[in-house]
Amino acid sequence: MNNRRTLATELGVIETFSPTIPKAYLKSQFVLLGNIAPALQLHVLNQMPRAKFVVADSMDLWLNIAMADLLKLLKRIDGFVLNDSEAHQLTKEDNIFSALKKIHKLGPKYVIIKKGSHGSVLSGPKGHFICPAYPLHKVVDPTGAGDSFVGGMMGFLATAKGNVDANIRRAMVYGSVTASFCCEGFGLNQTTKTKRSQIEKRVKELEKLTKF
Amino acid sequence: MNNRRTLATELGVIETFSPTIPKAYLKSQFVLLGNIAPALQLHVLNQMPRAKFVVADSMDLWLNIAMADLLKLLKRIDGFVLNDSEAHQLTKEDNIFSALKKIHKLGPKYVIIKKGSHGSVLSGPKGHFICPAYPLHKVVDPTGAGDSFVGGMMGFLATAKGNVDANIRRAMVYGSVTASFCCEGFGLNQTTKTKRSQIEKRVKELEKLTKF
Repeated sequence: MNNRRTLATELGVIETFSPTIPKAYLKSQFVLLGNIAPALQLHVLNQMPRAKFVVADSMDLWLNIAMADLLKLLKRIDGFVLNDSEAHQLTKEDNIFSALKKIHKLGPKYVIIKKGSHGSVLSGPKGHFICPAYPLHKVVDPTGAGDSFVGGMMGFLATAKGNVDANIRRAMVYGSVTASFCCEGFGLNQTTKTKRSQIEKRVKELEKLTKF
Repeated sequence: MNNRRTLATELGVIETFSPTIPKAYLKSQFVLLGNIAPALQLHVLNQMPRAKFVVADSMDLWLNIAMADLLKLLKRIDGFVLNDSEAHQLTKEDNIFSALKKIHKLGPKYVIIKKGSHGSVLSGPKGHFICPAYPLHKVVDPTGAGDSFVGGMMGFLATAKGNVDANIRRAMVYGSVTASFCCEGFGLNQTTKTKRSQIEKRVKELEKLTKF
């Protein structure tokens, strides 16, 4: 559950996709560049003049075939989210904290390494944060858990009062909880059924589960 | 770092060892049965009439060659500490929370599953606790980290005021910190040099690292 191995990636319609951002989104201040070719992520970013906090997700495929573009992207974004095996692939570091340090040098001020059911670790201007995963007793399908994590996190940041540094830890916890619902169903089955009150409930549970 | 595979176990002098507890220890109320043959752990426990909180550690070897004794032991102890791969071996459960549930049924009211650098999880009468590992930027030798963890935890419990339920979370955090010093040197090199003030400092750091 804590690691996936990419056997093959079928890009499908995404291969020749050149996204044009709808007008209603152009003023967005919080921008999440989902996992797609880094050149397309840059193409999206170039359409977002008001962006004040930009986070990008990535995957092993782009480290393998589009590293130059990825390095360009890393200089343009505030936050980068990747999993532990990708962090190792990018930095050749086994130690997660050494990897975080190296990734900062590539550009992003905020780096988050995801560790599946073991949670995630943030390195940012205010230091590190060890973020727990929500303890699931049954995992139906972890596909999309990483996307749900960063989506939940950015959703929280975009709607919270105060600055990113004040909110990012809590935002990651919301991300963990969002990912937990994702894992409880196939595809979007469970995620789309989830109510805000259920998310709040699990955030409170995580507070209790980690307090000492 | 998060998993060890046992290639061979040389029991050495332990193979024919029958420990007699020194008089000064006989009144101990907190008893930690270190990782040794379960029959010997029982032999030690039988010498401790005042024991009020007994925790045992174990390893894959005893699951392989002394399961009947181990099951006897589990009915006599309050807490059982094992790592995630041993929990899987004992219960055949991949999910850590399902494994915890099954281990409770074998006897212990407190079960702690260790996950190396990913921390540990407690299941006890007051529910679960997700305990962080102390973030080490350099690991010299993880040998003995698990023993240090449970040793630090029991040391805290034995000297703290209040009951086990009130103290066990904090005790586990002290265990994490003790284990972190163990990993920073070969054998007991670093552990034996460590001062209480250094331990307190890391406990405070862990508080800050996990708060949200």
